[in-house]
Amino acid sequence: MTTDNDVADRGKVYLVGAGPGDPDLLTVKARRLIDRADVLLYDSLTPPAIVESAPAATETIDVGKKPGPDGERTTQAEINRLMVDRACAGDVVVRLKGGDPTVFGRGGEETEHLADREIPFEVVPGISSVLSVGATGIPLTHREHASSLTVVTGHEDPEKEESALDWDAIADTVAAGGTLVVLMGVRRLPDYTAALRERGVDADTPAAMVEKATWDEETTVTGTLGTIVEARDGAGIEPPAITVIGDVVPVRGEVAAWLQRAGTDGVAFESDAIPVPGLAGGAPGGD
Amino acid sequence: MTTDNDVADRGKVYLVGAGPGDPDLLTVKARRLIDRADVLLYDSLTPPAIVESAPAATETIDVGKKPGPDGERTTQAEINRLMVDRACAGDVVVRLKGGDPTVFGRGGEETEHLADREIPFEVVPGISSVLSVGATGIPLTHREHASSLTVVTGHEDPEKEESALDWDAIADTVAAGGTLVVLMGVRRLPDYTAALRERGVDADTPAAMVEKATWDEETTVTGTLGTIVEARDGAGIEPPAITVIGDVVPVRGEVAAWLQRAGTDGVAFESDAIPVPGLAGGAPGGD
Repeated sequence: MTTDNDVADRGKVYLVGAGPGDPDLLTVKARRLIDRADVLLYDSLTPPAIVESAPAATETIDVGKKPGPDGERTTQAEINRLMVDRACAGDVVVRLKGGDPTVFGRGGEETEHLADREIPFEVVPGISSVLSVGATGIPLTHREHASSLTVVTGHEDPEKEESALDWDAIADTVAAGGTLVVLMGVRRLPDYTAALRERGVDADTPAAMVEKATWDEETTVTGTLGTIVEARDGAGIEPPAITVIGDVVPVRGEVAAWLQRAGTDGVAFESDAIPVPGLAGGAPGGD
Repeated sequence: MTTDNDVADRGKVYLVGAGPGDPDLLTVKARRLIDRADVLLYDSLTPPAIVESAPAATETIDVGKKPGPDGERTTQAEINRLMVDRACAGDVVVRLKGGDPTVFGRGGEETEHLADREIPFEVVPGISSVLSVGATGIPLTHREHASSLTVVTGHEDPEKEESALDWDAIADTVAAGGTLVVLMGVRRLPDYTAALRERGVDADTPAAMVEKATWDEETTVTGTLGTIVEARDGAGIEPPAITVIGDVVPVRGEVAAWLQRAGTDGVAFESDAIPVPGLAGGAPGGD
């Protein structure tokens, strides 16, 4: 197929959200693009089941940026170069990112690079891991409880002078009844829970950690700002995990008995088994 | 199909996110459930194209809560009753909500009601309209700019004594470089932009409004905290629209020339036309 626009001889880069883990939570558009891509560039937060669901003929490249001194690391410059080179070669490039591509996913930087190199691109939103919390029975907002939702990453030491986050302000939103979600905050959980308490947030404020939300191996623990570190250690929570702090957390306890989900709750319900004809990979890992 | 659990004779309620508007941004699971539902309960923020994509035999019920003295109004009690009655009658009930069901969607209240009545349910996350902003070229976070993302609704007068939101704290997160997204904030735009400026946020802080993000009729205007009210009026922005405030907004200007999307940018690209066999409704309105 050709179009009359002057970049028709080039490929295109799709920055695609892979969602939180369950392949059924890909968007219809993401599913179609994965099935159509010439090359798939995926990072370490992309669930394996989704990469494996690509057609066998699709070239898949792991560009995961693994932390640690011995981790293999694909630099951002290398990822940028790959996207541009392949698009210039005429390929449909799917740059797959865990969750949503522009929520702490560096999608913004990548679009700037592509635009700078005059490469056509498109951003396809995905279910951010933030939203996956809803599937565990914890609503992100609640008419009676939370009136705001704040999302930050937990990479940084809150007491660092040069911290880009205003923890005074974040603590105030939590104290006012807002929900706080911390992404990538397993290791520094003791630091930021302490930072919140020192800034006046009640130690009894409900808190939860969800590891691998919507994956088959999902684990959720609940507690309070004062107990969640112990709960994390007791359950052996490891990345990728999400921390939720606020009065919405106890809703899970109220609804858990009637919350069903294939894979995580051990309840198989007929609707979950309905196949989607024509979707390569069906629902691997979903049931 | 039967299961050995004691609620096998009952139906089930799925609280399903309909996404921001483009039917292609439904999740694979939402698509399948819509195609399978006995009854679909949808609200006023559910895009018409998605309701219309349901199989002809599916019963669809508009439970939209329309504001205003003359608007027909389905009360929450009535919605709750419908969900319970139909599930007890053995139906697969899809309660479709615009965006994500637990981000300002009252999904939490509805799960509590269902659990209280012992009705099996499941929450299927959707692309929140918050995330749809990414598709317009504005990343929600950016390594160089935004380190936090705060989401609130714009229904309330910020100067009301009993406002549930701590606008001092919200202003501080914006002043610290965070992104603020205001949902349902068309009418009160002058109020909360003034509230932010009075609390020390620079009038030059970039701002954007996106009406009907990802719909065919999408409109985006950009400006600053000081000019966005005028921009809203000039473009005639009406609900449903999203306000984005923060240093991420100008990224759109940098990348717009190479940002493509079927429907909104007038650029048809071959990949957008690939059908998904077996998905009822294909991609209505998407191209």
